[in-house]
Amino acid sequence: MSQKINSSVFGSYLAGFLDGDGSIYVRAKPNSSYKYGYQVSPTVAFFQSVKNRTFLTLCKQIQFGKVRVRKDGIFEYTISKQEEIKTFLEQLMPYLVLKQDQAKLMQKILDYKKHVRTVDDFKKLLVLIESFRELNYSKKRKVRMLTP
Amino acid sequence: MSQKINSSVFGSYLAGFLDGDGSIYVRAKPNSSYKYGYQVSPTVAFFQSVKNRTFLTLCKQIQFGKVRVRKDGIFEYTISKQEEIKTFLEQLMPYLVLKQDQAKLMQKILDYKKHVRTVDDFKKLLVLIESFRELNYSKKRKVRMLTP
Repeated sequence: MSQKINSSVFGSYLAGFLDGDGSIYVRAKPNSSYKYGYQVSPTVAFFQSVKNRTFLTLCKQIQFGKVRVRKDGIFEYTISKQEEIKTFLEQLMPYLVLKQDQAKLMQKILDYKKHVRTVDDFKKLLVLIESFRELNYSKKRKVRMLTP
Repeated sequence: MSQKINSSVFGSYLAGFLDGDGSIYVRAKPNSSYKYGYQVSPTVAFFQSVKNRTFLTLCKQIQFGKVRVRKDGIFEYTISKQEEIKTFLEQLMPYLVLKQDQAKLMQKILDYKKHVRTVDDFKKLLVLIESFRELNYSKKRKVRMLTP
């Protein structure tokens, strides 16, 4: 498989991979060095055993994002630059089945994030981020809804 | 996504899904009621949380295999009929990246299995089945290499 991401075959392959193994989420960590008191980190991630070297070839073909090796023997491939996430999800959107809602919510958050000007705007952003919890079936509340 | 499995888009989507989340394996369980002392079960499987109802729609589109709900809240979708596994993997083969070796080994085992006539043939089949262990990075030895 040597197609570029913009071919429908590679796009649908990656959509299947993301639906099966991937993760789309936004973390909001309290951090006082940020303007509104939170560090907001949108992420698209894939995980595979480090024994699966072919995974690295696949990651290279995506052309952005980066791979790190975790201590527990897992390759963690993450796309965290906002423009890259946007491009990646736009290309996969027509083919996503299970994670289309998460992808749309991510796009909404990235678009909204650009226009945050006030504390109230930021609170609305946190509410959007919080709604990932329901979509991703998280048991833990990942985002604390404190006033920023 | 309403394409049939034979469209390249649905085929590559499923290949990505299988590479990311799926599992291809053959179990050989000792069972004295079988001719050579083993029950041989080839399987292609996918797993998703039962909270993810869209997964059922996806399974239906594949048109064969079956879904069961496990006690731990996981949908387990398995294809275990040999002809279905063969058709399914043939259609995905051009698009598989990470699990192409497993798919080829499965095809080899299914082809070989038809021609088993003697205990020695069956021993060779068990050796083929055993070689899945390396491909699937299993820690446990799944197949005991006892004389059947």
